[in-house]
Amino acid sequence: MARDSAQYVRLAAAQINPIVGDIPGNTEKIRETLEQARKQQVQMVVFPEMALSGYPPRDLLLKTQYLEDLRSYMQQLIPETKGLTAIIGTVIREQDVFNAAAVIHDGHLLGYVPKTNLPNYRVFDEKRYFRSGRERFLFETDLLTFGVVICEDLWHPRTVAHLAECGMDLLVAISASPFNVGKPEERRTLLSARATDHNLAVLYCNQVGGQDELVFDGRSMVVDPDGNVLGQAKAFEEDFLIIDVYLEELRRHRLAVPLQRDWCEDHDDPPRRIRSSGSTLELKAPAKSFDISKNPFVPKVKEYRNDPIEDVYQALVLGVRDYVGKNGFRDVVIGLSGGIDSALVCTIAVDALGKDRVWGVFMPGRYSSDHSRLDAQRLAKNLEIRFTTIPIESVFQTYLDMLKKEFEGCEPDITEENLQARIRGATLMALSNKFGSLVLATGNKSELAVGYATLYGDMCGGLAVISDVPKTWVYRLARYRNERDGREIIPQSTLEKAPSAELRPNQKDTDSLPDYEELDGILHTYIELEYSCRDIVGLGYSAETVRRVIRMVDRAEYKRRQAAIGIRVTTKAFGTDRRLPVTNQFREFPERE
Amino acid sequence: MARDSAQYVRLAAAQINPIVGDIPGNTEKIRETLEQARKQQVQMVVFPEMALSGYPPRDLLLKTQYLEDLRSYMQQLIPETKGLTAIIGTVIREQDVFNAAAVIHDGHLLGYVPKTNLPNYRVFDEKRYFRSGRERFLFETDLLTFGVVICEDLWHPRTVAHLAECGMDLLVAISASPFNVGKPEERRTLLSARATDHNLAVLYCNQVGGQDELVFDGRSMVVDPDGNVLGQAKAFEEDFLIIDVYLEELRRHRLAVPLQRDWCEDHDDPPRRIRSSGSTLELKAPAKSFDISKNPFVPKVKEYRNDPIEDVYQALVLGVRDYVGKNGFRDVVIGLSGGIDSALVCTIAVDALGKDRVWGVFMPGRYSSDHSRLDAQRLAKNLEIRFTTIPIESVFQTYLDMLKKEFEGCEPDITEENLQARIRGATLMALSNKFGSLVLATGNKSELAVGYATLYGDMCGGLAVISDVPKTWVYRLARYRNERDGREIIPQSTLEKAPSAELRPNQKDTDSLPDYEELDGILHTYIELEYSCRDIVGLGYSAETVRRVIRMVDRAEYKRRQAAIGIRVTTKAFGTDRRLPVTNQFREFPERE
Repeated sequence: MARDSAQYVRLAAAQINPIVGDIPGNTEKIRETLEQARKQQVQMVVFPEMALSGYPPRDLLLKTQYLEDLRSYMQQLIPETKGLTAIIGTVIREQDVFNAAAVIHDGHLLGYVPKTNLPNYRVFDEKRYFRSGRERFLFETDLLTFGVVICEDLWHPRTVAHLAECGMDLLVAISASPFNVGKPEERRTLLSARATDHNLAVLYCNQVGGQDELVFDGRSMVVDPDGNVLGQAKAFEEDFLIIDVYLEELRRHRLAVPLQRDWCEDHDDPPRRIRSSGSTLELKAPAKSFDISKNPFVPKVKEYRNDPIEDVYQALVLGVRDYVGKNGFRDVVIGLSGGIDSALVCTIAVDALGKDRVWGVFMPGRYSSDHSRLDAQRLAKNLEIRFTTIPIESVFQTYLDMLKKEFEGCEPDITEENLQARIRGATLMALSNKFGSLVLATGNKSELAVGYATLYGDMCGGLAVISDVPKTWVYRLARYRNERDGREIIPQSTLEKAPSAELRPNQKDTDSLPDYEELDGILHTYIELEYSCRDIVGLGYSAETVRRVIRMVDRAEYKRRQAAIGIRVTTKAFGTDRRLPVTNQFREFPERE
Repeated sequence: MARDSAQYVRLAAAQINPIVGDIPGNTEKIRETLEQARKQQVQMVVFPEMALSGYPPRDLLLKTQYLEDLRSYMQQLIPETKGLTAIIGTVIREQDVFNAAAVIHDGHLLGYVPKTNLPNYRVFDEKRYFRSGRERFLFETDLLTFGVVICEDLWHPRTVAHLAECGMDLLVAISASPFNVGKPEERRTLLSARATDHNLAVLYCNQVGGQDELVFDGRSMVVDPDGNVLGQAKAFEEDFLIIDVYLEELRRHRLAVPLQRDWCEDHDDPPRRIRSSGSTLELKAPAKSFDISKNPFVPKVKEYRNDPIEDVYQALVLGVRDYVGKNGFRDVVIGLSGGIDSALVCTIAVDALGKDRVWGVFMPGRYSSDHSRLDAQRLAKNLEIRFTTIPIESVFQTYLDMLKKEFEGCEPDITEENLQARIRGATLMALSNKFGSLVLATGNKSELAVGYATLYGDMCGGLAVISDVPKTWVYRLARYRNERDGREIIPQSTLEKAPSAELRPNQKDTDSLPDYEELDGILHTYIELEYSCRDIVGLGYSAETVRRVIRMVDRAEYKRRQAAIGIRVTTKAFGTDRRLPVTNQFREFPERE
């Protein structure tokens, strides 16, 4: 059939949540989505980057069998694309290993597009696994001429320009772009910029789901050549976004693009043109059931604003749900202290898993206050979860007796404080071992930064839910969650009392740490913005406080090295995002005399 | 002074042990070494790769202040090279950041040679930090024409060939090449190959010392154009290797090199020639005190063979010494079980630190045997270390009472076993907190591989000394150590009894695991050789056993994610060397029906 530019083309972004390593399961999910696309008369369906493997599979990519499985399962998917153009992210090995997009048309593989720009910074290690693909392609089907880029490629203007200047109807961008605060806006801005740079519509499909420390927020979208968002898929959920566009509109814009030959000069070869042959796809009118405006280029998403606190909350919920689900845990157990950190984690867990899969355990010690018990009970009641009290005093006293001889003549110090935290950790682990529940660790980022946490104590757990959430955000998240329901879930008294670890009489966090507003300000500039100490002092913080905080952060690296996986929500989380040596004598501030 | 090829040139490899981050300290060490070189009439002194920064500094390289300090301390070193040619590894920022060698001659910087080939595999992440340097250089001083390559560059024949074909007297190779079994032989072979490939003498200087999981073994050497080792620096120690060579010999060989212009075709530019000007260095006859053969090209190191077990032992000793020393710990505390793992770790610690800095603690529980107590005591006696017994039964019983209600109706299982391990862990940590001693973890690689270890229990500690040592090697190391002294250090009964965790009545490791010979065979092929399961079965192991072992390895990833730093001695250690996702549904073997 000849091209008819008065026709619609129906595009879809299949925003799926694959599981790393589960190639058979991911294949089945893609197969079902292809079926759904056909039923909904979609003509081109786009899956995320590495949809078949899940992202990031890390050193699984060094396993021969893993790469072989990816190859053979992709072979099974090719015939499943009858009647469709499908773009599916995967990994291929052809001499070298490439992060690639399979472009498949009506049951025939047109080709694999390799990723050119491999991120190897922050949480990314793609140069460990992949070779950069130099060749680029333009695909011509009966419907469309389109190019494909993979995630990081979109951020490199030359890669996009090189394709765009050769003329196409649509740029397909597949991605596995993890969430952090500010990232959705960045992506949105970038997509608009690429569209307007080249007068080009962009279909962007992002992965969704939690994978260890990373949470992918989805938000796939279609952007028109004027940079408007025509439609956006859901955030933090699987979605199937369908957008109909006039071919006429695409072509009008394409003709308006000036040929910018200079962009090509850096490249050895122009993109290879691959034309689908043999099969033709019928262009169907969209089904009536879809509510699509007559001119699809009228922006549908007028305003685009995220509440960062809502975003973080949703990211944490999805991070917990997927860590628990993908690792096959039935339920979770959380130590409730009556404080705000464990209250927030417990609330997130209930939102992620439901109240029947969350178990709160209050473990009072000799310094625990009455209000802590009341607050913990009240939280459990508000959330309607199972609640157990296990006093640790008897074990603590027995430890002290056991160590009496060794500790003779020593004053009580951090040892006894840590011991209480470790008894609580071992108690939760015993419940975990006996009943199979995953322990969720409840420490926040401010504590973890300065080492105000006990290794093998409150740091115990398979997942540290809020270890990338600064203490000041913990309060904001708690208030947000209470306001969302319009009722008290996290007790008001928990929100109002001064934070305390209750590991010695009348202890307050501020005995050891600066006020949290000040602390978080310093930590943010040091960790996330990577300011030098001199520049932090330049912002108006006291040099003495900055010195003290930075020393605490640097000294606590050994604790973080053994910390549980934490869900990343900021631009720089501890873990794979920030890789410091433990043995490290670097001092930005010389020690005081 | 005109060149006189009948003269000697005196070369030195300054095999130093820098501390990551301690730029002032490393500068001082380099300054002292330069002074020593001058005193010993050395004419060219070569330091390891990144000698000024230590290797690897990881994300310290993202800190502006760190790069700035490297720049300013290097400025201080330049004038300290009066009367010498010095090559010092460092990091420079000139628009981009480069791993580089400063080439300094008689107080003047001749230039920085950037590293071209950046390793980004196994434990290496250099593409995260550095840009690859494209330009190469030949340096001409009054003494010598030489080129410089950095570590990985030496492994790339084209990089070396590109320099060599342009003609030089000497290739200088600086390195921070970590030890693993087999690595010294590989390096030795490579150096000989490069020398004979191009008829070129090579001066190779490697870092020495422990840095978190890595141990650098030194073994700097000079290889003549026939591939013979003229001299080699010590293994696992700082050293200052001095070698005198006839310039005549160097030149004779150089003239014999055919110009292989084809090598150059891949490169845009020939190496830049940099000639030192202004200053001239006097060629002195070597001091009489040096015992140098008349013709320095007569190989001095005829045979080159390492005992891998001796090597591993030395690596572990240095790893412990440097982790403890560089992190400022006074002493260490080790839980002695009477078993072979803790006995070996304790012996290594005594060799690393001396008997007065090692504290052995025996913590018997209800299932501990008499022979365990006797063996632990005997070890402590043999090593002459402080020995303390702390029975854990009272705390264990109190825990059981505390959990009685929750555990009602449940059979004893792994929970109670782990609890005993966690009480021991918490006890050691309490001693550590109270007295400042570093806890050394004692688990071996075979256990850690299959998850036969308790997180927050026996996995507690700042450094896991033998976590990259398979159980069968543990025995070999213990026997080696006993034989070395010609007397029993590790008790014979410890060597002979069947391994047991003693966490339930009559427990043996073989209740849960295959025989260690078989287990280690499977683990070696799976982890270090990265064989697929099918190929492992092809070696003759039972499919059922392989399936079981591989499943155990894969499932235990979450424990390893929270493990202490372990000293790397094999070709693939857990930790930064092997980066697997925790959330991972990949199964090479499908589950059994």
